[in-house]
Amino acid sequence: MKITKAVITLAGKGQRALPLQTLIDRDGIEKSVLDILIEETQRAGIEEIGLVVRPGDEAGLTAVAGNPAAHLHFIPQAERLGYGHALLCARDFVANGPFLHLVGDHIYIGRGETGCAQELVQVAEREACTVSAVQATREHLLPYFGAVGGRPLPNRPSLYRVETVLEKPTPTEAEQHLMVPGLRAGHYLCFFGMHVLTASIIETLARLLATADAPNRVTLSLALQETAQREQVLALEKKDWRYDLGARYGLMMAQMALALHGRDRDQVLTQLLELLAARQRQA
Amino acid sequence: MKITKAVITLAGKGQRALPLQTLIDRDGIEKSVLDILIEETQRAGIEEIGLVVRPGDEAGLTAVAGNPAAHLHFIPQAERLGYGHALLCARDFVANGPFLHLVGDHIYIGRGETGCAQELVQVAEREACTVSAVQATREHLLPYFGAVGGRPLPNRPSLYRVETVLEKPTPTEAEQHLMVPGLRAGHYLCFFGMHVLTASIIETLARLLATADAPNRVTLSLALQETAQREQVLALEKKDWRYDLGARYGLMMAQMALALHGRDRDQVLTQLLELLAARQRQA
Repeated sequence: MKITKAVITLAGKGQRALPLQTLIDRDGIEKSVLDILIEETQRAGIEEIGLVVRPGDEAGLTAVAGNPAAHLHFIPQAERLGYGHALLCARDFVANGPFLHLVGDHIYIGRGETGCAQELVQVAEREACTVSAVQATREHLLPYFGAVGGRPLPNRPSLYRVETVLEKPTPTEAEQHLMVPGLRAGHYLCFFGMHVLTASIIETLARLLATADAPNRVTLSLALQETAQREQVLALEKKDWRYDLGARYGLMMAQMALALHGRDRDQVLTQLLELLAARQRQA
Repeated sequence: MKITKAVITLAGKGQRALPLQTLIDRDGIEKSVLDILIEETQRAGIEEIGLVVRPGDEAGLTAVAGNPAAHLHFIPQAERLGYGHALLCARDFVANGPFLHLVGDHIYIGRGETGCAQELVQVAEREACTVSAVQATREHLLPYFGAVGGRPLPNRPSLYRVETVLEKPTPTEAEQHLMVPGLRAGHYLCFFGMHVLTASIIETLARLLATADAPNRVTLSLALQETAQREQVLALEKKDWRYDLGARYGLMMAQMALALHGRDRDQVLTQLLELLAARQRQA
């Protein structure tokens, strides 16, 4: 299985302005959030990128997409029918092939030399199935994420066979359905905001949306849950970091994380200490 | 002397996008940089605000100006003729009256209950002359600021009579012309980005620009220097903080400063420590 396409969803509520923001990356270079995401996919070998957008947002996004080598395809989501529908809009673009999917309001910082998406794509190509990146996450953060239950694959470090997927489960639901052997107590495998999805996920979304009373409730989690009952769906546990730019102080914390993991670390730490010291002098 | 008008310059290179950015203020409320500046002037008793803008920027600024009570007047600067010219564009708006002037790419955090601009306006109204807010600044930061030389006014804490004004002086120029009795060694009084200007400053700018070969070199510093030779110009030393949003990591540091001085201090400190700890675990 070879993955050459990516789909980034940018049409969500509160999500549309985020790709336009400017951050300084780990190499100290100013770029838009969109460019940071494009580079993440390119490091993973992606050649064609589909951007699911609200109609009218194309010009603004084109203006901040600095990388002329990126092959960008705008995919309009004309109706506000939610996340599952946004992915389904990319059906023609992905043309029955597997694809990398990133959400447009997160950025990712890798721990090692391999890019976050790059590792995920390599694993998905080897396993030839849908693979969701997940992260061991403390119970109190469950309200913010989709989460999976399953069991570790023997002799495959960091890989789990997914049995259950729940979107923003309660602690009770998580305890009943999402306990994963080997994880630290009070931790669950929550989505990292990055997946490799196969055509069967898109077909499942199409089927679920065709019969849904409330299309907005048809999430990727629901499609993954359905699909995992019929075929192998894997979860890859990441030790990397993801930052939700849409969270309160999300942009600031993402910028701080990039700076602290990058070449400007010393300079930014110094500024930060000066800031803290100035505050103390006041108190 | 009563000050009811403010002029904010927003047309500079690299400055135009900054007022559109969103920050969370000390009270934990999300607002545009423009709104933060508008509130700063309103706390100082300002009733009418003139925004010097590049033609075409009006709609974007109107969209982020959340406060309907603010009386905003757009003042187009059609030609890119620099900072002095930008101020001169406000000549009709200020109509020979004194006015508060803020630069559009800084935000200010006050140490006490009084707003930064509020204190400056009160002093200027009492002294009935031009007053520039300044801050004792270490020598190595001289390349970023205008700076003043002068002497303390007797029995007027924090007030100096301005004798010399130089824009971005070299250390040698500063040592020769800008030494101020009573300041710590290696420190100079640099502009804080906030002034109360009288009509004579505008008239000086008009005269300088009418004969200038290079209009971009006619700065506010030059007009203040000229004016200070003829009439009283004061400098008010501030212990508050200003953040230059256009500096590298400027937006992040400004947001961090607002958070650390505001009601979200504990939450943000916790997130920051988690970030630093995560980075250490990697190393």
